[in-house]
Amino acid sequence: MDIKPYKKDFDYSYSLGAFPTIELIKARPEDVICVFIHSTFTDAEKVRALCEESGISVSINDKLINRLSDKENVFCVGVFRKFDSPLANGRPHVLLVNPGNMGNMGTIIRTCVGFGIMDLAVITPGADFFNPKTIRASMGSAFRLRHGFYSCIEEYLAAFPDHRMYSFMLDSSVKLRDVLDEKPALYTLAFGNEATGLPHEFSTLGTPVFIPQTELVDSLNITIAAAIAIYTFAN
Amino acid sequence: MDIKPYKKDFDYSYSLGAFPTIELIKARPEDVICVFIHSTFTDAEKVRALCEESGISVSINDKLINRLSDKENVFCVGVFRKFDSPLANGRPHVLLVNPGNMGNMGTIIRTCVGFGIMDLAVITPGADFFNPKTIRASMGSAFRLRHGFYSCIEEYLAAFPDHRMYSFMLDSSVKLRDVLDEKPALYTLAFGNEATGLPHEFSTLGTPVFIPQTELVDSLNITIAAAIAIYTFAN
Repeated sequence: MDIKPYKKDFDYSYSLGAFPTIELIKARPEDVICVFIHSTFTDAEKVRALCEESGISVSINDKLINRLSDKENVFCVGVFRKFDSPLANGRPHVLLVNPGNMGNMGTIIRTCVGFGIMDLAVITPGADFFNPKTIRASMGSAFRLRHGFYSCIEEYLAAFPDHRMYSFMLDSSVKLRDVLDEKPALYTLAFGNEATGLPHEFSTLGTPVFIPQTELVDSLNITIAAAIAIYTFAN
Repeated sequence: MDIKPYKKDFDYSYSLGAFPTIELIKARPEDVICVFIHSTFTDAEKVRALCEESGISVSINDKLINRLSDKENVFCVGVFRKFDSPLANGRPHVLLVNPGNMGNMGTIIRTCVGFGIMDLAVITPGADFFNPKTIRASMGSAFRLRHGFYSCIEEYLAAFPDHRMYSFMLDSSVKLRDVLDEKPALYTLAFGNEATGLPHEFSTLGTPVFIPQTELVDSLNITIAAAIAIYTFAN
């Protein structure tokens, strides 16, 4: 197998770092193609043992790790096939509309999994779910989550007509706190692009909600707004 | 004035980008040394007008901006004197103990200001509050906040004996939700380093608190944990 720097059209990707790679091996052993470790990797025995349990090949390859790791300190890389993991119909969802940044997407994935929201929908175009930067920012939580990509909001809504959508947007007049009294069992928390927010149509497609904030900031960071919303809904 | 890439021991620093620089000019005009704009900057008139109001010199200098901007898209740079802005004794605080990452620190500053917590204490050594990366991640909120640096926790506690401290740590058995009923007017929310968390002694220096999370993640990102804590306390 020829290992090249990641591109979006590959049918495989990489987990960079020990923690994301261990998550990969534990959560989706059937999708692991192989694992590479650096000759100086201190947790090599743990990773070798995990791989052996699942019949995954491990080899030392410093040069390849240095090439893939893009200046970060990486001592362990997993190569995995991209996988489908369809959204559950009976569970709450987080919906990202044209997310712009892979680090933010990974952080939101980690938050979802941390609070037990295991289904992430993405309206494309947007940040690449499988890019190694997304996977790394998720700390491997991306391997635990179900995911679905939709080319427009109508496609998502047609697939999940029973979910009640909450649209997080600054020009709403409904505070987060005030929608929690009547929280439905099936809900979708929708967040827009970092620069542009949710398109205006979302104010009628769902209940528009805002998180009260001072006038001293333009907005909250998207990972922060999503975390507060997910925490308050999931708890 | 000789403009060089930032170093921690400088008595001045830079705001990189239009938004942080506009915040600098609005919040601390007396500390602005000068402003540089790029010849292709589209918001030049707005920045020129703001600077004129405060008697701040503006000049076009593409080469200097490219040198300072470290590969990011930056079209406007403010040069400012580092400033003191002592913590208020009668207001709630956020306390970061040996924070490791400037981007995280800036994001936490933005969250504080977004929720009206205007006092940030830092136990050093830790990420540099004035580094341009911190300032940029804060979106200029760092210019709105009071701040204090302390070389040990005892020094901070001696200065603010009336604040009740809440120590966010994973090995606590008290859920965030359960401390909110008796929330005091004066409180300090303490968060540890990204890799190591709070030192164990914090479990007796304050009320140890944790944010319930699934076993599928090792921990929440520090900016996420801090945001949830700040939001729930400040609202």
